[in-house]
Amino acid sequence: MNTFGKAFSFTTFGESHGKAIGCVIDGVPAGLTIDESFIQSELDRRKPGGKYATSRKEGDVATILSGVFEGKSTGTPIALVIFNENQKSGDYENIKELFRPAHADFTYFHKYGIRDYRGGGRSSARETVARVGAGAIAKILLKELGIEVKSGVCEIAGIKAQNYDFQYATCSEIYALDKNVEEAQKKAILEAKEAHDSVGGVALVRAFGVPKSLGEPIYYKLDALLADAMMGINGVKAVEIGEGCNASRMRGSQNNDAILKQGFKTNRSGGILGGISNGDEVDVKVYFKPTPSIFLPQQTIDTKGQELTCNLKGRHDPCIATRGSVVAEAMMALVLADLLLLNMGSQISHLQKVYM
Amino acid sequence: MNTFGKAFSFTTFGESHGKAIGCVIDGVPAGLTIDESFIQSELDRRKPGGKYATSRKEGDVATILSGVFEGKSTGTPIALVIFNENQKSGDYENIKELFRPAHADFTYFHKYGIRDYRGGGRSSARETVARVGAGAIAKILLKELGIEVKSGVCEIAGIKAQNYDFQYATCSEIYALDKNVEEAQKKAILEAKEAHDSVGGVALVRAFGVPKSLGEPIYYKLDALLADAMMGINGVKAVEIGEGCNASRMRGSQNNDAILKQGFKTNRSGGILGGISNGDEVDVKVYFKPTPSIFLPQQTIDTKGQELTCNLKGRHDPCIATRGSVVAEAMMALVLADLLLLNMGSQISHLQKVYM
Amino acid sequence: MNTFGKAFSFTTFGESHGKAIGCVIDGVPAGLTIDESFIQSELDRRKPGGKYATSRKEGDVATILSGVFEGKSTGTPIALVIFNENQKSGDYENIKELFRPAHADFTYFHKYGIRDYRGGGRSSARETVARVGAGAIAKILLKELGIEVKSGVCEIAGIKAQNYDFQYATCSEIYALDKNVEEAQKKAILEAKEAHDSVGGVALVRAFGVPKSLGEPIYYKLDALLADAMMGINGVKAVEIGEGCNASRMRGSQNNDAILKQGFKTNRSGGILGGISNGDEVDVKVYFKPTPSIFLPQQTIDTKGQELTCNLKGRHDPCIATRGSVVAEAMMALVLADLLLLNMGSQISHLQKVYM
Amino acid sequence: MNTFGKAFSFTTFGESHGKAIGCVIDGVPAGLTIDESFIQSELDRRKPGGKYATSRKEGDVATILSGVFEGKSTGTPIALVIFNENQKSGDYENIKELFRPAHADFTYFHKYGIRDYRGGGRSSARETVARVGAGAIAKILLKELGIEVKSGVCEIAGIKAQNYDFQYATCSEIYALDKNVEEAQKKAILEAKEAHDSVGGVALVRAFGVPKSLGEPIYYKLDALLADAMMGINGVKAVEIGEGCNASRMRGSQNNDAILKQGFKTNRSGGILGGISNGDEVDVKVYFKPTPSIFLPQQTIDTKGQELTCNLKGRHDPCIATRGSVVAEAMMALVLADLLLLNMGSQISHLQKVYM
Repeated sequence: MNTFGKAFSFTTFGESHGKAIGCVIDGVPAGLTIDESFIQSELDRRKPGGKYATSRKEGDVATILSGVFEGKSTGTPIALVIFNENQKSGDYENIKELFRPAHADFTYFHKYGIRDYRGGGRSSARETVARVGAGAIAKILLKELGIEVKSGVCEIAGIKAQNYDFQYATCSEIYALDKNVEEAQKKAILEAKEAHDSVGGVALVRAFGVPKSLGEPIYYKLDALLADAMMGINGVKAVEIGEGCNASRMRGSQNNDAILKQGFKTNRSGGILGGISNGDEVDVKVYFKPTPSIFLPQQTIDTKGQELTCNLKGRHDPCIATRGSVVAEAMMALVLADLLLLNMGSQISHLQKVYM
Repeated sequence: MNTFGKAFSFTTFGESHGKAIGCVIDGVPAGLTIDESFIQSELDRRKPGGKYATSRKEGDVATILSGVFEGKSTGTPIALVIFNENQKSGDYENIKELFRPAHADFTYFHKYGIRDYRGGGRSSARETVARVGAGAIAKILLKELGIEVKSGVCEIAGIKAQNYDFQYATCSEIYALDKNVEEAQKKAILEAKEAHDSVGGVALVRAFGVPKSLGEPIYYKLDALLADAMMGINGVKAVEIGEGCNASRMRGSQNNDAILKQGFKTNRSGGILGGISNGDEVDVKVYFKPTPSIFLPQQTIDTKGQELTCNLKGRHDPCIATRGSVVAEAMMALVLADLLLLNMGSQISHLQKVYM
Repeated sequence: MNTFGKAFSFTTFGESHGKAIGCVIDGVPAGLTIDESFIQSELDRRKPGGKYATSRKEGDVATILSGVFEGKSTGTPIALVIFNENQKSGDYENIKELFRPAHADFTYFHKYGIRDYRGGGRSSARETVARVGAGAIAKILLKELGIEVKSGVCEIAGIKAQNYDFQYATCSEIYALDKNVEEAQKKAILEAKEAHDSVGGVALVRAFGVPKSLGEPIYYKLDALLADAMMGINGVKAVEIGEGCNASRMRGSQNNDAILKQGFKTNRSGGILGGISNGDEVDVKVYFKPTPSIFLPQQTIDTKGQELTCNLKGRHDPCIATRGSVVAEAMMALVLADLLLLNMGSQISHLQKVYM
Repeated sequence: MNTFGKAFSFTTFGESHGKAIGCVIDGVPAGLTIDESFIQSELDRRKPGGKYATSRKEGDVATILSGVFEGKSTGTPIALVIFNENQKSGDYENIKELFRPAHADFTYFHKYGIRDYRGGGRSSARETVARVGAGAIAKILLKELGIEVKSGVCEIAGIKAQNYDFQYATCSEIYALDKNVEEAQKKAILEAKEAHDSVGGVALVRAFGVPKSLGEPIYYKLDALLADAMMGINGVKAVEIGEGCNASRMRGSQNNDAILKQGFKTNRSGGILGGISNGDEVDVKVYFKPTPSIFLPQQTIDTKGQELTCNLKGRHDPCIATRGSVVAEAMMALVLADLLLLNMGSQISHLQKVYM
């Protein structure tokens, strides 16, 4: 259950304060040029740093252990490992016996009957570094086929972007899609941080150049798989495709995208019809809750069931939507790579192209 | 890709206007009393009928072909088949060559290179009758363990329920959760219908009695799986868990659920932490777009790429969220059944209870 | 667990004396011409009849419920159903409480805590009719790519074929590959039958025209998957690839197949190297035990654990290897179809052929 | 496709001459005491060494990267990594362009269009070190439930063990089950080695204490899964369950195991009926071909299709059945662990034990 994907799949391992985080990416077609510096640059985008993120210091250097020979993918599994460097487990001594509110501490303990209290253990968002590494490999595949995935933050603390500049987001410290509201968004983050609190936010992920036909009805649809991928990211509580919630407040005549010779007149569908990509841009919005780790007193219980007040210390992002957008982007790339492979068998003519 | 679930799984088959719709449910534990009348009553809840739904007439009678002996599940796959009765394929002759806007016609054609124009073929929501049948079996399992799943409509055309009465919803023609807004919601549906248009809506699904521990981190989490299950229902464009989108507009101090001896003080999390059930009620909101089939002229193209105006005829629900809520309820039951089985191996003590 | 295959997969359902046996075949590429009479002719090859087989009478008429439109596969799941006609459950009243030696009665009872005593229920070889139906669809796919699978019986009661005539086997009542030993083999079957006993036998399955590259290392190899597929057939106790057991008695210099420009000099490998097809004929031998149902007194126990003597009645094949060879052939076709689809993503150049 | 198992599963990565070999073991129940020295001792059993094996020197030291906290499994994936130490890639410079007969070189090249010539790359039996590591974890689980798996070599170069002493095998340099034929078997290996040739052999794996009920009909049967697991080991060409090939030469009256109060009178079935364990010892024979790497001249072709004579150098086992028996033992443990978890959901009473 630590594997995502069917044809292009990845399996992750590792805990926040264990020796290493890593992943094994399986199903990578042979013959791709694997540029390690690109993988590193993707990890760097997710890496903590700056005043809007946690102060935990991690080099996040990925080492490829297998699957690449003379710079090319060989068709065998690619293992990536990132050794943890800055595990201050001591930070967690004081919470060893208590459950942090809105954290997975409580549920992991009840599920497994055991407690890895060090920074959330496996439930920590630190695990997502492995997803970004796997996502980088997926992107290398997508690029060969002219597909690109971009992302950014479209809302923080209720302050919404009015327009989306994906290029700008790559340079913004908070991954903001809209330069005009960026300062207000930054201010909201810092105000929450100063109040020992946190804020939520929303990431937008968009894929360009997606061919018509990705998505496997009925139970491996593109939209369902994206919902799965995004809702599985730490702290995500809602996922929208295209118009999303708004669609349910429209009439059909408003929501239906007319079809023209050159393509769809509008893209309220988010590029997906019947669970299959329609050739338009694929659009997903990912809603992150505020970071559960706040530095205000909170009511909770300990592993014996005793009530107490919890006062957290440690290093946490005041807003997880920012770095979370990079993870969401990686997940979209991984979903598309998987569906590209799965769709190869949809028509007998495809097999004839390859085998005859 | 027509299979959902890993341990308790089901595979569906059938087209809107083919001979039959059916499913094979695998992984059903032996020893359950399978009450056929209960299965039928679930199908009846989803069945078309009344002035708020399509006028297509289907008996929707399910026959069990296997897996049940002397009234008990035997551990072998349960096959259900529902023969189609009221296929008016003639209704579709006029759309044989064109793509209905906001429908899957366009994408199926591009994916498979072939066109089953009869009522959307496999992409039709008629397929969901099989999910409801499978869901009934899941509910029989859940009931043995004290778990119950309920649903209703909490919003239509922007008109929101103020409180949720799941009992009431079972009697309401539109599955309304709130008696006080039901009339306004009904009116909105009928107005749209009279205008040859359609409206969207939102279903709420809630599970009671869910044990702490369901959900398999990292890539088969309860929330991710629910998102997958719900987004895969025809016409769904957004899924929220607990506070959903709202959570991203709160601060951590507002959103975190305090933990008391007797349980959580609030349930903004929707009963899920770190992808695992926390023992509280599991809450999901499912956003349905307005029915794409409307009876107003629309711009589209045909299979040759020629632009034309499409004028649909036929029988369609003016609002799919109503009957859709029953499907969402079934999917929740199926997700929980699957996770109940998967969690059996989470602790060595569980194995000792069974084997020693 | 009633599903076989990953990309081209099938799920079966049904019991020996239930209403129907059937399967859902998923992953069938769209655009194949589905000839129903061919499917029926495959089922007929497996059908009971004649003096060398059980006298149970079954029409074994398959009905396609879905997945085919205007004679073509549409990419959606193909459901086949075969209604049981000749269930003499009465035959089994006397064995209701006892476990037939060498049968699955004992293990099903202990696994599921329940007993479907009617002809072995789900464990009956009658289930294999569904595999043959699914195999027929697989063969239609293989044929489009120039691949053919053939089979026959190469040994009965220790009497071995000296040469293999697959054409002859299709006409032989016992599916004999060697006309010269056929009479001796037939005699062995009848002698056993007259002695109220049964005999074992061996089937040979061979695939022609298999492209180099089928098989997914490391854990979905062609040979491993064939072993899985064959050992899973009722009554099979051993599987050999190529030289099989003999290879372990050779030296490397004897066993290695030299490679020439035009191909392999010999085919001791059975057409598989490193779990991947090498372009040569793929060869598998499948060893069937003697039918466990014999009409001699046997020691056994009942469901209460009491010892008793069991005297079986009913209708049984005196040798299951004969009709079993048809099932093995179907399984080989299904394995190859699955691997053909899975291999589509092995090289980036394949994706470029399909998408660019 | 580098993953084996469904509930208790493992994924391996790494090439013979890459940086590392490793695996991620998923589905390990929480609460197991993970003794690292036991894992190491299992790896040591498989480790090259002595005059009957390759002279390649590898420490084969496994490091646990995740999934274990304070000596206990936590329910999260356990990653093991073994860094390669003694890669003499130079040994392979001379075979860079040619295909070694009976090796996977030829098929990998055709499948992936790329060549990792260093010691067979991913197709090397060196990968099996990861299986043995994963198998050690499986054994820790089995032991908690009173199940034990043992193995040894029962035949080399046609010289067969007359009786099986599993204890003796653990001390024998060639893992011989029968002290009385051990010397003859050793001699056969050395003679072949001196003749620059190799010999085949057969391993026997037996499980003790297996509960009745393991195996998931119809397509995840215990015997089928064992066949899959064993045939997937490098160099295996045949697999037998219980009497295996012999069964097909018997009559039913000879082959059927009578059932007594205290258990089965004989165990010709190999402890499996209908694909489910019957409580008796589970018996599998695994047939290994002679090592393909021999030091005699052989006919082959190069990557351009030119014929030439191949003269291999390097370090190879003269008989792979010996160390292969340890791998087969690990695979049996992994199969049983997987089926133990899967069977947890077979009866509703099991769920009641865990949840109520």
